[in-house]
Amino acid sequence: MPPEARRPLPPDLAQKLAAEALGTGLLVATVVGSGIMAERLSDDAAVALLANAIPTGAILFVLVTVLRPVSGAHLNPAVTLVFGLQRALPPAAALLYGLAQTAGAAAGTVLAHLMFEAPAIALGSQARTGAAQWLSEGVATFGLVATILVGLRTAPRAIPALVGGYIVAAYWFTASTAFANPAVTLARSLTATFSGIRPLDVPAFIAAQSAGALLALGLCRWLLARKSPA
Amino acid sequence: MPPEARRPLPPDLAQKLAAEALGTGLLVATVVGSGIMAERLSDDAAVALLANAIPTGAILFVLVTVLRPVSGAHLNPAVTLVFGLQRALPPAAALLYGLAQTAGAAAGTVLAHLMFEAPAIALGSQARTGAAQWLSEGVATFGLVATILVGLRTAPRAIPALVGGYIVAAYWFTASTAFANPAVTLARSLTATFSGIRPLDVPAFIAAQSAGALLALGLCRWLLARKSPA
Amino acid sequence: MPPEARRPLPPDLAQKLAAEALGTGLLVATVVGSGIMAERLSDDAAVALLANAIPTGAILFVLVTVLRPVSGAHLNPAVTLVFGLQRALPPAAALLYGLAQTAGAAAGTVLAHLMFEAPAIALGSQARTGAAQWLSEGVATFGLVATILVGLRTAPRAIPALVGGYIVAAYWFTASTAFANPAVTLARSLTATFSGIRPLDVPAFIAAQSAGALLALGLCRWLLARKSPA
Amino acid sequence: MPPEARRPLPPDLAQKLAAEALGTGLLVATVVGSGIMAERLSDDAAVALLANAIPTGAILFVLVTVLRPVSGAHLNPAVTLVFGLQRALPPAAALLYGLAQTAGAAAGTVLAHLMFEAPAIALGSQARTGAAQWLSEGVATFGLVATILVGLRTAPRAIPALVGGYIVAAYWFTASTAFANPAVTLARSLTATFSGIRPLDVPAFIAAQSAGALLALGLCRWLLARKSPA
Repeated sequence: MPPEARRPLPPDLAQKLAAEALGTGLLVATVVGSGIMAERLSDDAAVALLANAIPTGAILFVLVTVLRPVSGAHLNPAVTLVFGLQRALPPAAALLYGLAQTAGAAAGTVLAHLMFEAPAIALGSQARTGAAQWLSEGVATFGLVATILVGLRTAPRAIPALVGGYIVAAYWFTASTAFANPAVTLARSLTATFSGIRPLDVPAFIAAQSAGALLALGLCRWLLARKSPA
Repeated sequence: MPPEARRPLPPDLAQKLAAEALGTGLLVATVVGSGIMAERLSDDAAVALLANAIPTGAILFVLVTVLRPVSGAHLNPAVTLVFGLQRALPPAAALLYGLAQTAGAAAGTVLAHLMFEAPAIALGSQARTGAAQWLSEGVATFGLVATILVGLRTAPRAIPALVGGYIVAAYWFTASTAFANPAVTLARSLTATFSGIRPLDVPAFIAAQSAGALLALGLCRWLLARKSPA
Repeated sequence: MPPEARRPLPPDLAQKLAAEALGTGLLVATVVGSGIMAERLSDDAAVALLANAIPTGAILFVLVTVLRPVSGAHLNPAVTLVFGLQRALPPAAALLYGLAQTAGAAAGTVLAHLMFEAPAIALGSQARTGAAQWLSEGVATFGLVATILVGLRTAPRAIPALVGGYIVAAYWFTASTAFANPAVTLARSLTATFSGIRPLDVPAFIAAQSAGALLALGLCRWLLARKSPA
Repeated sequence: MPPEARRPLPPDLAQKLAAEALGTGLLVATVVGSGIMAERLSDDAAVALLANAIPTGAILFVLVTVLRPVSGAHLNPAVTLVFGLQRALPPAAALLYGLAQTAGAAAGTVLAHLMFEAPAIALGSQARTGAAQWLSEGVATFGLVATILVGLRTAPRAIPALVGGYIVAAYWFTASTAFANPAVTLARSLTATFSGIRPLDVPAFIAAQSAGALLALGLCRWLLARKSPA
């Protein structure tokens, strides 16, 4: 272990924003890149989805573990929104977090395209719309935010494994494969590959994700509230 | 981490029952939803079962981790029965736990159906009957309950990973794919998809699960008993 | 957590032998059962081997976690041999451990057969012989024992995850799919399914496993030895 | 646990070099061996890559866990280079580490070939060249080294799971399947199987890996730097 290993971390805002951008970028590079690799290699769409879900869960575990002491490792504007509403983050910082996440996410799509020799940017062509898709995104984001909020109270050190494990499950139990992240959704509208989404379908996804996040915040407040005065 | 992160949890019974209902509901939504996704995407039934088992193990790890300090995270009437017999839970609370789990489980099936644009409720059409299936359910539930009871003595902090890991294995080593949970079994009789079961076959499954749970309780009492008086 | 959760475990020898038999039995039921399930469901032998390896790794993690404080969770005569040679176990106990493991393993094969409606016992029909197979078993068992011996010194609390993770890898990096366990090898000669082995091929497998285990013991003694007198 | 389990480890340099050689050898045996097994068993290249990635991630978790207190478990000249530049390792030791890793890696390829009855050594025949492949290797090694460097500061005990999880993801999100290791790259030029690479393509891979490692070192220094004087 290098000599500085034991010194505490005092990140300033620029470092935190860089961590959010870098982390969200690597997350999207994994989602988009593994999707391209999977669809090129397999004729079985379930194998491709496993090969999309397992790497995404693994990189989330890695990113949340290493970046959490730096920036909190939100990597997701829906998570930042909830922490902002809980006043764990000032509004201006929350806004900057969201911008850093979104910029990092878009760069992640470009990076994946360059690694796989695809055009740097393309418009998503996969239709993902309708009430069932929106319900899926609402449920997916509700579950993600509830996992984080309850987990912070009941098992804070397990958060990275919880986030990774939850997303592996949500890829499969929702009909939308659980985007569950507005920045990632925007970035996935910039690819015409396996994990893409039509730009037209993005606003409703983000609305559903926001609704799911807010519902989780309300439910968790009740679920974790002290009931007795003592 | 939000400011309330360090305060102890004092859940009252309503909060516990909500946790049991919500957790069992998400568990069933994962079992049924991932089953639908898997059978739609794959022609290889083993790929589909992997895509059913891995998400189920992952969500169990998540749910048991975050809900255990709230309600104990039984999520399973067979587990509640065993804790009730050990007097870790009063009979009335155990009964309410079972009802909350069953109601949550049924809602989980409905939620999965709505996300995948299937009718909200259907009758299970998959025949799962005969001595080998019943033996499978008895073994699956025996192993689950024994894992929990021995684990509580020997490795209590590992319980969430133990439950998730055990179920991933039991999906494959039993011929019934290890329902191992009466509330989940009832809820799976309400779907005509990959993970369904004919309503007719439910009672024998629940009887076999109960027998397996009680056998595990007896064996673990002996296995963990002190033999010397000191 | 039930009231007895915090009392120390004082298992006597009968309890330890029961734990070894039960654990090895569940391990073999998983190896054989998941093999039967996998070969029935898939035409792709790599999918079947994944569906054999992942459950085996998962159940090993579970069994070693919960049974280690009871019996040490050897579940493997090659491991018991090495601990016996290190005098961590008296010779008579080591012999009884080996017998309990072997009896439990055979029962595990029978249990898997009954769950899958196969004849209780069959003779293994799959030829597994030749220098490359023996080298594979030697390497597989060397790696398993070395992982355990070094891990006990450097990361004792990680042993269950190390054993499970190692076996998932060894299923794939050896040509024999890493039996790496004399009791399991004998038990797998009693099934004519995916995971079986001809009885004729068993003795050479066990010899190769023993050689690998002893080589690991010698190497680890050197690797972990103190070199300076202080 | 054997009696010596609690004594501290005082490895001398020979023990450290043996640990690096043995660990890198087992890593390469897993990469090459699981690749051979996978391509023999499957017609679906995505299944084969899953069966290559999951065992590699699992064995990395095992090797880094058990060998880290012995040698640091670099198992990778790019990692040794970075620690050498940070003066965590004297230059002569770093050089010997690199040689031990390379020799161990080559032996790992030979061992895999012998287990699978292939010629002991062959020249890699798979073309892996071009800007997209080099970018992939740069990104893969950047991510690996950044994960280790940030992880050492923010979550040092999670390093083994971080390395294993990262590599599972990087197999899929890069177009080159993330060699990310000069010693492993050289060793993979000695096999004409699934995981091989043409010897001709090795130098550019190693250059890209080195560039990625150095970029990670620079970025992490900034990301983890204290900004305020206090």
